[in-house]
Amino acid sequence: MTVGELGEFGVVARIAARLPQGAAVLLGPGDDAAMVSAPDGRVVVSTDLLIEGRHFRRHWSSGYDVGRKAAAQNLADVAAMGAVPTSIVVGLGMPADLPLTWLDGLTDGFREECALVGASVAGGDVTRCDLVVIGVTALGDLQGRAPVTRAAARPGHVVAVAGRLGYSAAGLALLEAGRATGGEQAEREPRWGDVVAGHRRPSPPYACGPEAARLGASAMLDVSDGLLQDLGHVAAASGVRVELDPGALPVAEPVAAAAKELGADPLDWVLTGGEDHALAATFPPDVRLPASWQVVGRVVEGEGVGVTGRETGPGGWDHFR
Amino acid sequence: MTVGELGEFGVVARIAARLPQGAAVLLGPGDDAAMVSAPDGRVVVSTDLLIEGRHFRRHWSSGYDVGRKAAAQNLADVAAMGAVPTSIVVGLGMPADLPLTWLDGLTDGFREECALVGASVAGGDVTRCDLVVIGVTALGDLQGRAPVTRAAARPGHVVAVAGRLGYSAAGLALLEAGRATGGEQAEREPRWGDVVAGHRRPSPPYACGPEAARLGASAMLDVSDGLLQDLGHVAAASGVRVELDPGALPVAEPVAAAAKELGADPLDWVLTGGEDHALAATFPPDVRLPASWQVVGRVVEGEGVGVTGRETGPGGWDHFR
Repeated sequence: MTVGELGEFGVVARIAARLPQGAAVLLGPGDDAAMVSAPDGRVVVSTDLLIEGRHFRRHWSSGYDVGRKAAAQNLADVAAMGAVPTSIVVGLGMPADLPLTWLDGLTDGFREECALVGASVAGGDVTRCDLVVIGVTALGDLQGRAPVTRAAARPGHVVAVAGRLGYSAAGLALLEAGRATGGEQAEREPRWGDVVAGHRRPSPPYACGPEAARLGASAMLDVSDGLLQDLGHVAAASGVRVELDPGALPVAEPVAAAAKELGADPLDWVLTGGEDHALAATFPPDVRLPASWQVVGRVVEGEGVGVTGRETGPGGWDHFR
Repeated sequence: MTVGELGEFGVVARIAARLPQGAAVLLGPGDDAAMVSAPDGRVVVSTDLLIEGRHFRRHWSSGYDVGRKAAAQNLADVAAMGAVPTSIVVGLGMPADLPLTWLDGLTDGFREECALVGASVAGGDVTRCDLVVIGVTALGDLQGRAPVTRAAARPGHVVAVAGRLGYSAAGLALLEAGRATGGEQAEREPRWGDVVAGHRRPSPPYACGPEAARLGASAMLDVSDGLLQDLGHVAAASGVRVELDPGALPVAEPVAAAAKELGADPLDWVLTGGEDHALAATFPPDVRLPASWQVVGRVVEGEGVGVTGRETGPGGWDHFR
């Protein structure tokens, strides 16, 4: 059965039935607007659009994968401010012939990714579109803390990362080269399961965002367009230079293996691969970092981002080029 | 020049430069997330997707019109809860060949519609898409009041509307029949300017939302899919029947004139035309309504929505049919 056969109000009811609300949602789906708790009198808000064919392909990613990914990239933005996500709202454009099984998977993906951080889906909107288009807006609570922006990195601070780097880029490269398959069976492939799964569904280190804020991070962001490019935003906003130590950058074994298979340099994926939604932050030098944060460089006077011993271009992802 | 020629970061900078932030925006565009004031510890949130070819056509509506409309429909949802909008965030999918003049108009439309209610654009996301796709999420503040949902209309309450009904449907019918032209010159046509402008840009009666809440409205929503269908949601959520008095329904002169031109029944547009984003509410019978609210019917025991003396079907708009 398809979404067109079920009709708009049936689709809305079907989605809502799969989405229990958490305690922060004071009024859930079914009215003109939802109402969400904002305990400290401020709300952190981030929005992203995901477009079929550009951010995901239905033959490589299930509805469930896409739901996880769509929620994850916005929840990671909230965490990157040092906030705890409370809820998401979702605008969903779908072709009439979209199978309900795909929609159910998508809905379950939203629910389960939100559940990782104690958030839930507070509301949304459905409409018809020739492509699957997903607009996710995430809300979060700073628990009384100041937001960690990109603008307060200072020379002498250390640069550290939490979470995975290069997995999504490695998985995409294997899929594009035909060395790995997409769809449901991909994660059962023993060799490439980790990186293909990493492309289909990022695993942002959500708790590390508020953790970094409590530790006194001076700047933070989530790595969505590649470490080099994203740290370039920190450098520009803070008026500093970021110098990365290539020997300190984490090259995970599955990423190294994929690079070997394709004759690629794994450090390229670590430096320029987006969509893993790791967190990158700067900290004053006296902060004792827990194991979740790995020091990969330092903040110096100057501008831009460098990798000691390597030539680097901007190397990230421009959505219009 | 096009958005593709300018590139993602140039586009983001160009948009941000046209968008001053209001006092409720504590941290505006340029970081992972924005931060917005939520003074009473709760935030009202509503999201909608607008898809080119489905919700607007570029040859009938300018970028400015689309920006006004996209903001308006979400701000109206917030007002329909009895809240005062504080901000919107916008996800924007655009083809690379989209002219910057169109984007500038869109941005100006967001800004100016938000300014009508003292809100502003707090943040957003841009990406490439073959169609123009706009995801707007609006946030609002209840100023300490309870939200006005759809669920507390009671038999004996009156039904009232604020704002325009039938304008958008009349304008669309004229455009579809080729009796009026779209584009920039449409509003200079003396005969059909009001209804064509009403289709291109709704004029929701924003202040009437918080006003109704202060007056003690028992239920409220914005009319986005047609008065009959939308009041059906109040009837269903409240477990009541809504009985409309056709003689009391407002048929504005421009709507009547358009109906005469096309041999249509203007009451059909008033009852089933969506997208004007009027507000409809129910009030206890002892509430003295100001002139902004016009009584059009009453709440009785039963279910569904009736128009005294007329046969009515559901008559609204299903996005998948």
